[in-house]
Amino acid sequence: MRVVQLLAASPEDFRTYPVEQLDLTLAGIAGDRHAGATRPSDARTPWHARGTPIANTRQLSFVSVEECAEVAALLGVPEVDPALLGANLLLEGFPELSFLPLATRLQFPSGATIFVTEQNAPCVHPARKLAEAFDQPRLAALFPKAAIGRRGLVGLVEREGMVRTGDAVRVVAPPGAVSRRQAVPEAASL
Amino acid sequence: MRVVQLLAASPEDFRTYPVEQLDLTLAGIAGDRHAGATRPSDARTPWHARGTPIANTRQLSFVSVEECAEVAALLGVPEVDPALLGANLLLEGFPELSFLPLATRLQFPSGATIFVTEQNAPCVHPARKLAEAFDQPRLAALFPKAAIGRRGLVGLVEREGMVRTGDAVRVVAPPGAVSRRQAVPEAASL
Repeated sequence: MRVVQLLAASPEDFRTYPVEQLDLTLAGIAGDRHAGATRPSDARTPWHARGTPIANTRQLSFVSVEECAEVAALLGVPEVDPALLGANLLLEGFPELSFLPLATRLQFPSGATIFVTEQNAPCVHPARKLAEAFDQPRLAALFPKAAIGRRGLVGLVEREGMVRTGDAVRVVAPPGAVSRRQAVPEAASL
Repeated sequence: MRVVQLLAASPEDFRTYPVEQLDLTLAGIAGDRHAGATRPSDARTPWHARGTPIANTRQLSFVSVEECAEVAALLGVPEVDPALLGANLLLEGFPELSFLPLATRLQFPSGATIFVTEQNAPCVHPARKLAEAFDQPRLAALFPKAAIGRRGLVGLVEREGMVRTGDAVRVVAPPGAVSRRQAVPEAASL
């Protein structure tokens, strides 16, 4: 897997813009809209009152070239620009990126490491941006369904460092993961 | 699910001791051995040089009454004390606690909320403590196999607040979780 494009967002706009490198800090991407040790609770965390300060487990988001191409094909548009999705990293070489197990780590040559916290669910912001970009209002309604399971992942920075365009990405599976199947043989002897 | 026992650890000892309540902060349990916005990388994170400061996604650990009883039965001992496991919360009413999906939230009446980051893998510390407690050296070798898939989970504090003995626990499944099966029908129309 490798880094095809890096993007960041200014505080005013949901959309991201291409940059050459990202400076990952333990509070997220330095200067990015989603950086911060905490974030205010929003529609994604309805089990907290809106605006409650909560740990920022959505510091950055990443999508794959392959899944973006699938969404574009489903929508009948030439491409889905990760900038319109507000993504921070566009990765290539792991087609089903959205199904990487949570707690997987993505490590870059500098040592910078992302801890995968959640799947990203399609929301209305990119749907509207896509509809505007292609001047096709129907896309706003079609995007969420086309993007489900292809919207990439979000994570937090486990270790600080720089990420650069073209970087190789090391994928570290969660080492403690135990399946129910592994536990069953022991249970049988109870 | 409810809170049966709460425990904390002093900085000097792996074992936890019972307390009436836990003060959850965004850096973990106030005063606890495992509190901190960061922790030094250790044997559990061999993709970082040992001692590298990394985000603390293991602020606290929790086990279930039911799984501890299973481990005790497998080891042929009367009980497995969560204090010897270094656990912070002993929960009851969700027998397969260790298989809760990652990114599940456990929310307490105060609003305090834990974000589940990883399964906990059996390690040598509790194995030795158990062997000492029962004066049975064989337990040190048997524990890891008996405890696999029953060792509970670790997490970080998503929202601050107090947790009290007897608290009811609200389990919030990760809302963005999409299965491969959900994504496939769309893929078929590509």
